[in-house]
Amino acid sequence: MQNKRIQYFLLSLLISFTATAQELKSPSGDLELSFVLNENGAPVYELGFKGQSVIEPSLLGFELKNQPPLLEGFNVVDVQETSEDSTWEPVWGEEKEIRNNYNELAVTLQQEGTDRKMLIRFRLFDTGLGFRYEFPAQEKLGHFVVKNEKTEFTMTGDHKAFWIPGDYGTQEYDYNESRLSEIEEIGRSYEGGDSWSKRFSPSAVQTSLMMKSDDGLYINLHEAALVDYSAMHLELDSDKLVFTSALTPDVNGDMAYMITPAHTPWRTIIVSDDARDILTSDITYNLNEPSRIDDTSWIKPMKYIGVWWEMITGKSTWDYTRDFNAVKLGVTDYETATPHGQHGATTENVKKYIDFAAQHNFDGVLVEGWNIGWEDWIGHKKDYVFDFQTPYPDFDLEEVTNYARSKGVEMIMHHETSASVRNYERHIDEAYQFMKENGYNAVKSGYVGNILPRGENHYSQWTVNHFQYAVEKAADYEVMVNAHEAVRPTGVARTWPNLIANESARGTEFQAFGGSKPFHVTVLPFTRLLGGPMDYTPGIFEMDISKVNPDNDSWVNSTLVNQLALYVTMYSPLQMAADLPENYERFPDAFQFIKDVALDWDATYILEAEPGDFVTIARKAKGEEEWFVGGVTDENPRQARITFEYLPKGQNFIATIYADGKDASYDKNPQSYEIRKVVVDSKSKLQQKLASGGGVAISIKPAGKAETKGLKRI
Amino acid sequence: MQNKRIQYFLLSLLISFTATAQELKSPSGDLELSFVLNENGAPVYELGFKGQSVIEPSLLGFELKNQPPLLEGFNVVDVQETSEDSTWEPVWGEEKEIRNNYNELAVTLQQEGTDRKMLIRFRLFDTGLGFRYEFPAQEKLGHFVVKNEKTEFTMTGDHKAFWIPGDYGTQEYDYNESRLSEIEEIGRSYEGGDSWSKRFSPSAVQTSLMMKSDDGLYINLHEAALVDYSAMHLELDSDKLVFTSALTPDVNGDMAYMITPAHTPWRTIIVSDDARDILTSDITYNLNEPSRIDDTSWIKPMKYIGVWWEMITGKSTWDYTRDFNAVKLGVTDYETATPHGQHGATTENVKKYIDFAAQHNFDGVLVEGWNIGWEDWIGHKKDYVFDFQTPYPDFDLEEVTNYARSKGVEMIMHHETSASVRNYERHIDEAYQFMKENGYNAVKSGYVGNILPRGENHYSQWTVNHFQYAVEKAADYEVMVNAHEAVRPTGVARTWPNLIANESARGTEFQAFGGSKPFHVTVLPFTRLLGGPMDYTPGIFEMDISKVNPDNDSWVNSTLVNQLALYVTMYSPLQMAADLPENYERFPDAFQFIKDVALDWDATYILEAEPGDFVTIARKAKGEEEWFVGGVTDENPRQARITFEYLPKGQNFIATIYADGKDASYDKNPQSYEIRKVVVDSKSKLQQKLASGGGVAISIKPAGKAETKGLKRI
Repeated sequence: MQNKRIQYFLLSLLISFTATAQELKSPSGDLELSFVLNENGAPVYELGFKGQSVIEPSLLGFELKNQPPLLEGFNVVDVQETSEDSTWEPVWGEEKEIRNNYNELAVTLQQEGTDRKMLIRFRLFDTGLGFRYEFPAQEKLGHFVVKNEKTEFTMTGDHKAFWIPGDYGTQEYDYNESRLSEIEEIGRSYEGGDSWSKRFSPSAVQTSLMMKSDDGLYINLHEAALVDYSAMHLELDSDKLVFTSALTPDVNGDMAYMITPAHTPWRTIIVSDDARDILTSDITYNLNEPSRIDDTSWIKPMKYIGVWWEMITGKSTWDYTRDFNAVKLGVTDYETATPHGQHGATTENVKKYIDFAAQHNFDGVLVEGWNIGWEDWIGHKKDYVFDFQTPYPDFDLEEVTNYARSKGVEMIMHHETSASVRNYERHIDEAYQFMKENGYNAVKSGYVGNILPRGENHYSQWTVNHFQYAVEKAADYEVMVNAHEAVRPTGVARTWPNLIANESARGTEFQAFGGSKPFHVTVLPFTRLLGGPMDYTPGIFEMDISKVNPDNDSWVNSTLVNQLALYVTMYSPLQMAADLPENYERFPDAFQFIKDVALDWDATYILEAEPGDFVTIARKAKGEEEWFVGGVTDENPRQARITFEYLPKGQNFIATIYADGKDASYDKNPQSYEIRKVVVDSKSKLQQKLASGGGVAISIKPAGKAETKGLKRI
Repeated sequence: MQNKRIQYFLLSLLISFTATAQELKSPSGDLELSFVLNENGAPVYELGFKGQSVIEPSLLGFELKNQPPLLEGFNVVDVQETSEDSTWEPVWGEEKEIRNNYNELAVTLQQEGTDRKMLIRFRLFDTGLGFRYEFPAQEKLGHFVVKNEKTEFTMTGDHKAFWIPGDYGTQEYDYNESRLSEIEEIGRSYEGGDSWSKRFSPSAVQTSLMMKSDDGLYINLHEAALVDYSAMHLELDSDKLVFTSALTPDVNGDMAYMITPAHTPWRTIIVSDDARDILTSDITYNLNEPSRIDDTSWIKPMKYIGVWWEMITGKSTWDYTRDFNAVKLGVTDYETATPHGQHGATTENVKKYIDFAAQHNFDGVLVEGWNIGWEDWIGHKKDYVFDFQTPYPDFDLEEVTNYARSKGVEMIMHHETSASVRNYERHIDEAYQFMKENGYNAVKSGYVGNILPRGENHYSQWTVNHFQYAVEKAADYEVMVNAHEAVRPTGVARTWPNLIANESARGTEFQAFGGSKPFHVTVLPFTRLLGGPMDYTPGIFEMDISKVNPDNDSWVNSTLVNQLALYVTMYSPLQMAADLPENYERFPDAFQFIKDVALDWDATYILEAEPGDFVTIARKAKGEEEWFVGGVTDENPRQARITFEYLPKGQNFIATIYADGKDASYDKNPQSYEIRKVVVDSKSKLQQKLASGGGVAISIKPAGKAETKGLKRI
């Protein structure tokens, strides 16, 4: 008789759950989540912020391959509510400590007819919502293939959006700023892009997607903990203003191969009426697992220069010779080849960089084009494209390594894979071993071009798994990874903090390829950077690229001070000073900021922020009584309002202010700047003019009375 | 002025070469090759044997992707003739020494307009022709993609052919015997096949293709040295009776990515008016490169038994439990799972096999299903399907290893990859290392199912490269490889003699899956075995599979003696005694032949051969004064005519003859056999009756006078 009672009890649960919406509030009560099954038994959620709707009722579920969909016909069979309020210390980051505070609702659904179970777990933080689908191990659902994830995000209006087009191959786009209703038309007009670009729908955009409602709500859609799944795009129904998840397919058009117990990444909705909260939200990291690396002592922020910008601008080359129209590693004889004389990574040239790094106290020197294979590395879908171990004849790896060691400079390895993933995996152990033997502790990897295995996409589950594999392998060798052209980060660096940076968006290199929009750096903090640090490679002092290479008429759309400010506004534990040493030597006083600026932080204060317009950020250096402020604007000049209340009260500090010159502008006079020292305390206020495409950068140090003498106090 | 003279000289060469056919004869003069450019400047070859046409004029060339074809518009710019007559010693094989004797014609062509150069190298042996295309490093041809290889083989008539259908996924077909003109119609009627089968054209067949003309010419088309290229099928124009090469595409439909200097595999035409010459032709090995392994002392032929047939028949299972509908390695908990009790690879069961191996002097024991993951290994295109290291809870690897060592028996590792190639490559170093640590020196690998990366084919360049990679990796670890479901071999084992066997055709396992045609084993020596040894796994004594597993009503279409004969007729340095120990224990006198038969040979004598009908072979054991004879027939009983002239003259030998019983037949009475001992010398002759699906097996040892006493002399 006991069984019957249990059945009765379960049945009553079913009825009550199905009939009643589940409500959840964030710890502060500002955010409200509602979950319900609609009349078809389809899961529906909605989200509100301070009584205002953020996401209107939106469906959840999946289409599966060769199986009935997981879209409707569900009953609620279990509901769990829990809470979390804890803190954790990141290995590196914008804060010394991160608070993880949420209320959780976990709803287990069972589908009538198929008896398949699916759990939806919602975590409601004060700055937003994360939710994911979970599939417990169960008799009726073992292996399954996701044909389409149908997660909806129903917008409340025709918001302003900062977006780049959905693409299975590249993320390196300039941002668009438009109404949601304009996306599709702009999407239709797209042309060009990288040769390996794969746009798939005019109304699809990439995450993270930043929006602003007419009511002043800031809303960001992204994902967290993208592991063993394909990357999510968002496809807009332009009439209904509903986004639906659009995953990245594999070669067969399948989105994800799943084995229970399984779960998707978290889908995140960060929301606030204050844009600054978007930048400080820790949702993305909090939704990732704690570090899987026990001893993280070998993971260290690095400031570096590199033999790189000279190739990017076309002043020198990655390749060594013009003798070969095709290279066959192990067959092609480089020793007898005629060098063309433009090769960048020569022993002699690299030594100059090492000297410069040592002189100015940089941690490391990156060298690209050091290894054979660059003569035909792109455009051929070439399998065995690099071996990651054999230097060009004019690069004496041992000599360079010893020289760097004698100068106290670390060398940063470069592994361009040319997206030939099998080849990289075949060589990865030997390549990392080779690094360790030669004292390299960090690698910049690259995935330019069409993915091999041919037909795969850059952001499909297969390739996402590769990026993860490379980071985990690197951890085995205590190697830090800076992966370019890898999938956009989603906070996985919490779990694998040796992933110290990614590119995975349009970086500074595009300033030498025709330029990026001046507002680019006011958007990235609201989009790309929410998932993890970016190796943006700032610090360009010579904006007229033709002065570096007469054949390149590109222009860097930024003032020199804007470049300085990026070291603060674009958080990364890995920061490059990307320009040529000779350009830094022309502006030693401005260069001082790059030398001084910290890489790791105890605390971060967003002073002002508006996506697409401006960002002003102050940060306290980790373990130091030093603060740095950076502010950037878009193409419009503006007055930055900088406060200092984060400074210890009652103390004097010297602030060195790097400001755009009065006549500065990114397009006409980018190298005009002024540097002044003032005395500040926690009550100080500063109105600082930023030029068009300009910025402001400030370093702040405690000062004794003597030092403040003669300095203006603000 | 010197330049002008050279140009003039080249021009005159051009004219003369273009106008005149190049003729080449084989060393004996029996074969004649003719090469000419036709009126379109297209390369054309033809082949004759003793004045009779074998291949009528046939075109050569390529269609390329995004490039003009390499089909016509050629001029001859260089012609080289050379000869070779040398010998080499294989690490293992049918002969102690192999003679490599050919005349070579190398014609360099240059295409008008494109200036691209292509060299066609012909090697004419006394038993056939090999030719390949070579692409020197050149300015106008660096990277290129083969869209189609258009190598023609124009038949002289409607020959009888032994063929299996062209398929990108499986080679495990029963053979068809038909006229060429019947292929397409039979091809249209094909149904079924493995679930990962990919037939692509009703008129396509696989190589090696064996034919016989009405004039009694035996002709075999195959390839040699398939490395870094896709496997060749042959597509028939049924009206013109012209075969054209049909390569295996990658996921994009591309056939091969080439980088100059490059060459194709060799295309081979073995021809004779004596079927026996086809079996002794060493063209395939001779067209491969010499061994790349310097110290081959660790490569040793092996005779083995295995925990295998019990799973093949369904008596026991590879998997361990029914608890899981899906397995997630590293997550799924096997320790708490309920074993279903049918698992084959238990410590206890394996020990019994080890005991049996030790008792009967076998070198090794193979164990399949020892490692976790078999519950869902097939049908899911599962990526992380096996880790190749974690045993099931009921298999104590250390205990088994120690036990085997104590008994002087080697364990053979099993790596089923489930065709998940990336996963295997990721684990391959650790897996081989694990083998070495546990004293395993040989691995049986398997590639059942759809290839991962998804969309790739079993025989595309990508996958062929994987098979090669695995063999070369294994050589690094001194591991011998027996790869099942890998691409059909093409003599690569000369270069990598650690590739001691392949399956790569329909093996004995199909006798438990519904049976194979009785004539199968009379065809394989003329087809599959030309490329290298086959792990055919003979030795089945119990033909009624329902006696092993009541739920399996399959029947082994072979007499017991036919099974014995296969150890001689199906050459392999790796030979399994595939049946269950208890079945051998029922027939200890017949089993004696399996125990006695050698694995490696000083010399081989084909006594009789007719493809599809019969094969009778005598071989001298390597370094021993022992000979073994094996003969098999198809479904027709026959009288084998066995001679002994290969025995040293004037000496007496005792021949133990294992013959089908008078009432034997494969379908009614397969276990009827007679064993008799007779005295033979080099002049002896034996007419031995073979039953339907039957065979004869003879072991021959020198005999003192005393031993011959009372024995009949023949």
